[in-house]
Amino acid sequence: MTQPFRVAFAIGDAGGISPELAAKILADSSVNRNDMIVIGDARLLARGAADAGVTLELPVVTPDALGGPMPEGTFLVDLANCDPDIVPQGTASEQGGRAAVQNFRCALLVAHTGAADVVFFTPFNKHAMRLAQGDYVDEIGFINATIGATRSGREFNVLDEVWNARVTSHIPLREVADSLTEERIYQSIRFTTEIMQGAGFERPRIGVAALNPHAGDGRNFGTEDDDILAPAVERAKAEQMAVTGPIPSDTVFVRAIKGEFDAVLTMFHDQGQIAMKLLGFDRGVTLIAGYPFPIVTPAHGTAYDIAGQGIANTGATINAVELGRKLAQRLPHPERQAGAGDLPALFAKALDRDAVWI
Amino acid sequence: MTQPFRVAFAIGDAGGISPELAAKILADSSVNRNDMIVIGDARLLARGAADAGVTLELPVVTPDALGGPMPEGTFLVDLANCDPDIVPQGTASEQGGRAAVQNFRCALLVAHTGAADVVFFTPFNKHAMRLAQGDYVDEIGFINATIGATRSGREFNVLDEVWNARVTSHIPLREVADSLTEERIYQSIRFTTEIMQGAGFERPRIGVAALNPHAGDGRNFGTEDDDILAPAVERAKAEQMAVTGPIPSDTVFVRAIKGEFDAVLTMFHDQGQIAMKLLGFDRGVTLIAGYPFPIVTPAHGTAYDIAGQGIANTGATINAVELGRKLAQRLPHPERQAGAGDLPALFAKALDRDAVWI
Repeated sequence: MTQPFRVAFAIGDAGGISPELAAKILADSSVNRNDMIVIGDARLLARGAADAGVTLELPVVTPDALGGPMPEGTFLVDLANCDPDIVPQGTASEQGGRAAVQNFRCALLVAHTGAADVVFFTPFNKHAMRLAQGDYVDEIGFINATIGATRSGREFNVLDEVWNARVTSHIPLREVADSLTEERIYQSIRFTTEIMQGAGFERPRIGVAALNPHAGDGRNFGTEDDDILAPAVERAKAEQMAVTGPIPSDTVFVRAIKGEFDAVLTMFHDQGQIAMKLLGFDRGVTLIAGYPFPIVTPAHGTAYDIAGQGIANTGATINAVELGRKLAQRLPHPERQAGAGDLPALFAKALDRDAVWI
Repeated sequence: MTQPFRVAFAIGDAGGISPELAAKILADSSVNRNDMIVIGDARLLARGAADAGVTLELPVVTPDALGGPMPEGTFLVDLANCDPDIVPQGTASEQGGRAAVQNFRCALLVAHTGAADVVFFTPFNKHAMRLAQGDYVDEIGFINATIGATRSGREFNVLDEVWNARVTSHIPLREVADSLTEERIYQSIRFTTEIMQGAGFERPRIGVAALNPHAGDGRNFGTEDDDILAPAVERAKAEQMAVTGPIPSDTVFVRAIKGEFDAVLTMFHDQGQIAMKLLGFDRGVTLIAGYPFPIVTPAHGTAYDIAGQGIANTGATINAVELGRKLAQRLPHPERQAGAGDLPALFAKALDRDAVWI
């Protein structure tokens, strides 16, 4: 039985702007195209709607009702896991973190079973999630454990016409240089090329950021750019990938925004994040790709300082949903036909805080 | 004998846009306030004027005439070291590099002897300078050797209202973490505070960029932010410096441009350069401070690709001259009264390519 296109939408951290962002976009028919399975607490979403000054009329189901046919259009799966009268606003909390972990886990399971095509979430707070689950390091590890992935996905940042992928991410800066190998950089170029081809770029043009200042300045300031990065780029070029570099990291983004590259591959977290956040804090999208379904979220955080004021900018959130849909429609989901018969059992497990997921 | 205020102005690399930038600002009376000692080749400057489409009427002296009283107003010291009929345009060359080294050395000596208050130069190309002088690593080392400085200066990038200083600079990325100590970071905060106070900031507000992603994320991604940076910041705070941090490096510049900080102190070269170049490639200024006179230059490079077309943007060049004057007028020059009696001998030595300067 073919199922309709679905976005599994996890409501993010209760303490920040996530509930009001969720309410705003659900109330906006240009964003909510009646294709969303929203996962969270009905009371929290109602408070978000009140904060945002919007009216929401969503069908609500309980997790154990998911075994049967899904409702038509957008609906809320009420996990009843985050009472806004108890969970504090404007700060990280264990209760807020636990609900975010549960919402995310359930959204991943919905997509993993084939009942949705893309996972989208409003901002999480890692600190809150760790208060609830001590071993929560980052999204990638959590996704791998939740869906039993044998190969890690990668995080991309997407801002307007420029994509940013990175070879290393959440590791200490002192470990970056030793983490780079020609093979790893080559694979990152290839992976980026393939993901972007899936997103409609016929031959994505990738600029590779150098590791060292001035790309090592002819080995004066480090040798990795000549010995590791350059050979990886040459290998990818020999396979007809449209890659250039290594390019000094302080000019590669300037060239990309002028239209010279579709993507920048950076060697470490902040090398790309500094640029992307400066270019558009309010517009950037984080994409986690490499799984059977894309996972998208706005690049900004929970913004505890403005929570509940109804002033949160929805730009990045809307861009995230749009990018997720665009990618999912091009990326065939291998589990697409599998149905969702075991969702109630999976949800029951996801909501059991003592369950072991690894 | 009190001397008039002077800018020692070294014409930069002959192959790029330096000659036309020099001609443009010398022809602009709002920038050339009749206070400049221009150092370079008269023929090259004439070609720059032709390329820029401006007319220049400058008094010209030879180096050996510098022993007597200086001409009034702006004049050119013609080193006759860079014949534009021989030195190629649009590329780095040994001849162009040698002339740039000589011009820079002479400008430093003019200021060092007290005959000028600030050193300004149009863009150099390090590769060309190394073709001429193999041991030319960077400006700081060259300045130290030329004027016999016992303490190295520091490089700042200045863009509109935001200054950027860095703790480490032209070193491999793999050496950054081990190069950071609490003392070194504290000294950088103090030095930045003092230099900016000299530039008129009563209590400059400094944001300190974290080393690791998410400032180490509570020791998950590295320990230096907690163990080295934070104590350095606390020590500076205890001495009433207006310092905040460590702040994740992907948000510290966003906060600075919103007006929260006057300066950002970064831990390594590209951490700041990525941001500053994105924020305004055409406006940024590089300041080398910590010597008895400020040294300023536009932050952009030689732009070989547009050399000779007369289209080079003078924005950063004008900003550099203005910043240099502003700082020099506030920073008393200890050698100011020393006169310039030995300049001819120093110039003769500077022009001898076999002279040993270290």
